[in-house]
Amino acid sequence: MTSRRVCVVVSSRASYSRVRTALLAMQAHPDIDLHVVLIASALLDRYGSVLRLMKADGLEVAARAVTVLEGHDPTTMATSTGLALLKLVTILENLQPDVVVTIADRYETLATAIASGYMNIPLAHLQGGEVTGSIDEKVRHAVTKLANLHLVSTPRAALRIERMGEDPDTVFVTGCPSIDLAVEVLNSPEVEIDVVGERNGGTGCRLDVSSDYIVVLQHPVTTEFADARSQVLESLHAVRQSGLNAVVCRANEDAGSQGTADGIRAFRTDDDTDRFLYVDSLGPTDFLRFLHGARCLVGNSSVGIRECSFLGVPVVNVGSRQTNRERAANVIDAAADRAAVYEALSRQLANGRYAHDELYGSGQAGEKIAAILAEAPLRIEKHYVE
Amino acid sequence: MTSRRVCVVVSSRASYSRVRTALLAMQAHPDIDLHVVLIASALLDRYGSVLRLMKADGLEVAARAVTVLEGHDPTTMATSTGLALLKLVTILENLQPDVVVTIADRYETLATAIASGYMNIPLAHLQGGEVTGSIDEKVRHAVTKLANLHLVSTPRAALRIERMGEDPDTVFVTGCPSIDLAVEVLNSPEVEIDVVGERNGGTGCRLDVSSDYIVVLQHPVTTEFADARSQVLESLHAVRQSGLNAVVCRANEDAGSQGTADGIRAFRTDDDTDRFLYVDSLGPTDFLRFLHGARCLVGNSSVGIRECSFLGVPVVNVGSRQTNRERAANVIDAAADRAAVYEALSRQLANGRYAHDELYGSGQAGEKIAAILAEAPLRIEKHYVE
Amino acid sequence: MTSRRVCVVVSSRASYSRVRTALLAMQAHPDIDLHVVLIASALLDRYGSVLRLMKADGLEVAARAVTVLEGHDPTTMATSTGLALLKLVTILENLQPDVVVTIADRYETLATAIASGYMNIPLAHLQGGEVTGSIDEKVRHAVTKLANLHLVSTPRAALRIERMGEDPDTVFVTGCPSIDLAVEVLNSPEVEIDVVGERNGGTGCRLDVSSDYIVVLQHPVTTEFADARSQVLESLHAVRQSGLNAVVCRANEDAGSQGTADGIRAFRTDDDTDRFLYVDSLGPTDFLRFLHGARCLVGNSSVGIRECSFLGVPVVNVGSRQTNRERAANVIDAAADRAAVYEALSRQLANGRYAHDELYGSGQAGEKIAAILAEAPLRIEKHYVE
Amino acid sequence: MTSRRVCVVVSSRASYSRVRTALLAMQAHPDIDLHVVLIASALLDRYGSVLRLMKADGLEVAARAVTVLEGHDPTTMATSTGLALLKLVTILENLQPDVVVTIADRYETLATAIASGYMNIPLAHLQGGEVTGSIDEKVRHAVTKLANLHLVSTPRAALRIERMGEDPDTVFVTGCPSIDLAVEVLNSPEVEIDVVGERNGGTGCRLDVSSDYIVVLQHPVTTEFADARSQVLESLHAVRQSGLNAVVCRANEDAGSQGTADGIRAFRTDDDTDRFLYVDSLGPTDFLRFLHGARCLVGNSSVGIRECSFLGVPVVNVGSRQTNRERAANVIDAAADRAAVYEALSRQLANGRYAHDELYGSGQAGEKIAAILAEAPLRIEKHYVE
Repeated sequence: MTSRRVCVVVSSRASYSRVRTALLAMQAHPDIDLHVVLIASALLDRYGSVLRLMKADGLEVAARAVTVLEGHDPTTMATSTGLALLKLVTILENLQPDVVVTIADRYETLATAIASGYMNIPLAHLQGGEVTGSIDEKVRHAVTKLANLHLVSTPRAALRIERMGEDPDTVFVTGCPSIDLAVEVLNSPEVEIDVVGERNGGTGCRLDVSSDYIVVLQHPVTTEFADARSQVLESLHAVRQSGLNAVVCRANEDAGSQGTADGIRAFRTDDDTDRFLYVDSLGPTDFLRFLHGARCLVGNSSVGIRECSFLGVPVVNVGSRQTNRERAANVIDAAADRAAVYEALSRQLANGRYAHDELYGSGQAGEKIAAILAEAPLRIEKHYVE
Repeated sequence: MTSRRVCVVVSSRASYSRVRTALLAMQAHPDIDLHVVLIASALLDRYGSVLRLMKADGLEVAARAVTVLEGHDPTTMATSTGLALLKLVTILENLQPDVVVTIADRYETLATAIASGYMNIPLAHLQGGEVTGSIDEKVRHAVTKLANLHLVSTPRAALRIERMGEDPDTVFVTGCPSIDLAVEVLNSPEVEIDVVGERNGGTGCRLDVSSDYIVVLQHPVTTEFADARSQVLESLHAVRQSGLNAVVCRANEDAGSQGTADGIRAFRTDDDTDRFLYVDSLGPTDFLRFLHGARCLVGNSSVGIRECSFLGVPVVNVGSRQTNRERAANVIDAAADRAAVYEALSRQLANGRYAHDELYGSGQAGEKIAAILAEAPLRIEKHYVE
Repeated sequence: MTSRRVCVVVSSRASYSRVRTALLAMQAHPDIDLHVVLIASALLDRYGSVLRLMKADGLEVAARAVTVLEGHDPTTMATSTGLALLKLVTILENLQPDVVVTIADRYETLATAIASGYMNIPLAHLQGGEVTGSIDEKVRHAVTKLANLHLVSTPRAALRIERMGEDPDTVFVTGCPSIDLAVEVLNSPEVEIDVVGERNGGTGCRLDVSSDYIVVLQHPVTTEFADARSQVLESLHAVRQSGLNAVVCRANEDAGSQGTADGIRAFRTDDDTDRFLYVDSLGPTDFLRFLHGARCLVGNSSVGIRECSFLGVPVVNVGSRQTNRERAANVIDAAADRAAVYEALSRQLANGRYAHDELYGSGQAGEKIAAILAEAPLRIEKHYVE
Repeated sequence: MTSRRVCVVVSSRASYSRVRTALLAMQAHPDIDLHVVLIASALLDRYGSVLRLMKADGLEVAARAVTVLEGHDPTTMATSTGLALLKLVTILENLQPDVVVTIADRYETLATAIASGYMNIPLAHLQGGEVTGSIDEKVRHAVTKLANLHLVSTPRAALRIERMGEDPDTVFVTGCPSIDLAVEVLNSPEVEIDVVGERNGGTGCRLDVSSDYIVVLQHPVTTEFADARSQVLESLHAVRQSGLNAVVCRANEDAGSQGTADGIRAFRTDDDTDRFLYVDSLGPTDFLRFLHGARCLVGNSSVGIRECSFLGVPVVNVGSRQTNRERAANVIDAAADRAAVYEALSRQLANGRYAHDELYGSGQAGEKIAAILAEAPLRIEKHYVE
């Protein structure tokens, strides 16, 4: 058997971090010829250079294309999707892969799925079948209906995909590769001194990582993007009320990101507590080590649902972004309102760490994914299974 | 209550014909402010001018955009989708509709669905939930997962959509508006003399519409586009073997259409029977009247499944394009092989007309669709209903 | 005679400000039916909302399209041009103007010119024929070769256009409409108190407009975009050395703008003189009044060459961006080096105001432009005049 | 010195044929690392597969992208340009050439020029400076203003480019590489028997190449595309009137090509002389040999102006497409009117062959071009030379 040409389209630093162990496993697999394509915010420096991470990981970029419009609003997201589609067609036409891999639910995943679908290239989708409640969920399920292989994180995700009419033989529960990294972190959890303040270009207070601190990571909700500014402000005020130190991480670039950034800036200008550190982007391992040492995560990132369940870190999940997503005991939901966030945060601080939970996998997802991509039958044609 | 601004995106002559009664009902509805947008093959003259049909129907074009690439192969279809998306964003940004309507399953429906989805405009999808077995089916279901309102043709389509996790309150069985036209045709079925040979620019033999004749309408199957030429040739040879006259209609412009056209041309060059008439495109009413008078339809058009079931016209459905689609008693399937097609055709000619069947509706679909679009709650947000 | 449908494509706040009096004159002209199309940075809030300015001016937007990619580097500028072209085609197809107007030399002007050229719509180009020395100059002359009417600012610009083979009958010296505004400002030059610090959201020091102050407006040079950060820093250090107060204006979004912004931020973080005010964007009139009261303008904006010559404001023109551009006595050139800038600045502060100069017009450009667009013969075809 | 990475963008079969000897010379040059990119009609089979020609010539395709919209009208040409630009950016970003080469004046040359210009890659333009009188001329000169190196066919073209403000040090007269092929043909002019009727898939009469025959090659004029049908019909009627045999070649795909094709089809349906052979596309060498043996070329192809002057073949140049283009004694112009064409044709038939003329070069253009691309200084920056 000759190697399969596997093309993985990575569109953001978050996606890269999430599938990193799968990429490394593919790179090492004798029957896979890996081609990584970078598009969208994976190429924007202000979201953390994926190029740098890949180099450090010994991975090469097969092709790249800028696709993100400035001025993140609903119109630009749709335009960016169209642009990504046009550019991916040309990239795939020139790469000629045997299978294309798309990850999760950002708008670029639809572009990848459509390009593959019409170009008769089998499509594998990682992390389908989950529910979250926003445009992301619509996109995730639409990609499922365009995909030929489904590599999912949880048994319930698999069940949903089958209910949507997909052939059970094409659905595989691999766990989420993000948990693979969490296993590493759990095995050597020490945060290096100064990692945050220096190496990652943070500004604001100087944080003592052996102290008690909270991490804030809150993204705009694309269907509520006009409220992004006020939503992040509510969380920040609640965190300040706790009296603990906090690290505030930069949000992703979905519609509303300008509002989120404005909210953080406004808070920072007013705040004189010297207890807040603002960081653009941490490396995935540093970030997880850092989370592991935190008293609580406040925000709406999926990290709170996935990695934190495995690590046992308490999470205050704010607002509607993760609505309906499967979660372990470590998550308390709160409305995007400072009183509600503060109340949930107080409960979490009182509770302390949670037990380790394997809801999103136990740590071999990367290798499982590589094995399936190397071996599973590749078909284009499919039918709704009644 | 002020009128709703309803934007219907029409991307082909077939789509126009299919939803024509719905458009006329919306135009007449006091609470709907109709805007028709034309894209894709709806603007290509060789597929029959939708502009002319609309004018005859008293409808105006609100905006238009060319989007179809030349050289119909998988690469161009994906590129056309991206281009349609870019242009629809600009059109929708300038039209600002309250709801966007997309029809069926061509690639442009995905562009419409993505533009609406990211621009936070509710999307209504006509004719979802059906199964057919090709890229069209993938696209149809992907559009379902992006849509907010589902106006479907049959109860089983509705059931599938609900199984895919859509809220039953957003799913409406209206019947297919194509049947509305079939009702008209059934009420006045006379084909005007010479309609085919003269008014529609056909070439080939001169057909006597009072004689026995067969209609051939066979499209390329996009996932088998390399076989388009041989597939249509098999059907044409089987029809010639029947000894009856035949009208051969031009195929749509999906990937493979060049092959289909080549096959027809090759057949025609060789054929000396003077029993074949070749037509580019008939008006929807003329075409149905013509079908109504035919002894049999041979090919893989959905007209065979829908309108012909209502009209009771025998159909030989060739190949995989309509696989799994719900059908009435009037359809006999045949492989894309001349012996198989001839055998099925012989059975249909021996059988004669079938009983009228309301599987795809009873003829008020246009009005039902208009009423729902005028009244149904419009929401952007949705969740997978477990 | 029926009105001409004139479509003016505005792609930035700078362009809007520059042609504002021409737009108002067209709006008032009985034989012109004006349609303003906004694209590119004209729609990005952080560059100052053209929508707001237009509303204040009583002008309507006929159509709009987002076209600017994030991550300003050479790749994104080329992509933005392609995107603007795709979207303008659709907009022009739906507007059907008699003549399209494009302004100056930004990359979007090429998109406008190509769309018009291939769509057989006559193109009028404002401000062609000037020389500057960067990609802008290439673009400006390329647009000249695609344009049918040339409305230029100076006799020498007209001469260059004729030398390039354009028909002299299609070349009109109107003066630059930016000077029209300078006339108004000269007639009522008072800067309202606090205009800068409050109304325009500036940050930094509180500036007394009756004091001596310098204005800094320095854009990245697209062919030297890697040096943008250091180039602006050199200017800022030279200005600090002068000991005067200064207002630092945000740069445009060409390739390198991130570098310029970074340079300004770095300077600001280090600076403790409390003599610098940082503003995002001033209204055109406020900005000119403000310039009029300044002791000197430092940077590379074309405002220093145009409006300042009329107003007699001393200018230190830094680096290569305006190389070769026609200038009056008020400009001293300096290399992008703090010693050179400081030396030139010292000479200008010693010299004081210059005499009023009408090199770029005397103030009726807007009306002249409107009259020509209403009356000049409109032809598509043209030939190189030997 | 390390090899230069030269990227040649080929957008049509005509362009390929024209620069073929330059490509072969670059391939053979030790200091050039050649990358050929195919876009636009170069990838459309119905215009003759460039892929096949390149394979026969031992050349590889570095990258490719479909870019041509269906439905050739002004709107689609502008859209195709935008699409080509978007795709070329991605291709160039991934190829990273040292210099990009664009050829002549089709719309895709502008896309290539803009992509290179904004991506800071030096651009070499072949065949600039000529005059022709249609949108092609506008585009050609616009590309000149964006290019850094000009490799032209005639001294007058060089002069025009210098008059447009280009630095004489960047302008090189190489002759047209199409003449290199004409030299070969002149050295071995025998047309192989049956070459036309069989090997090239022609239809219509069977032509005896030793007889007297006329060649017809007439393209639509993009600014008069509505007249394409009638224009070609006038020429065909004039040719029929001559009583000689004729070979009618398929036109290119500019706006109006549908009209041209319709005109030819209509003529063919009516014609019963059995003296006309219709061919889709001949290989470049076959075509030239064939032209060499013809009594006259009728149409508006540039081949009549270039290669035919060298070969001494009489040409009736119809209509405005080549207006103002430099020509030798072998060309007689005629209006697009059957009487005028017939009159000019009669004069040419009476005159017979013309003397060999080296207006467009003497046959080493390919090698000269390769040498210049390997050695000339490459600069991005340029200024209008007063």
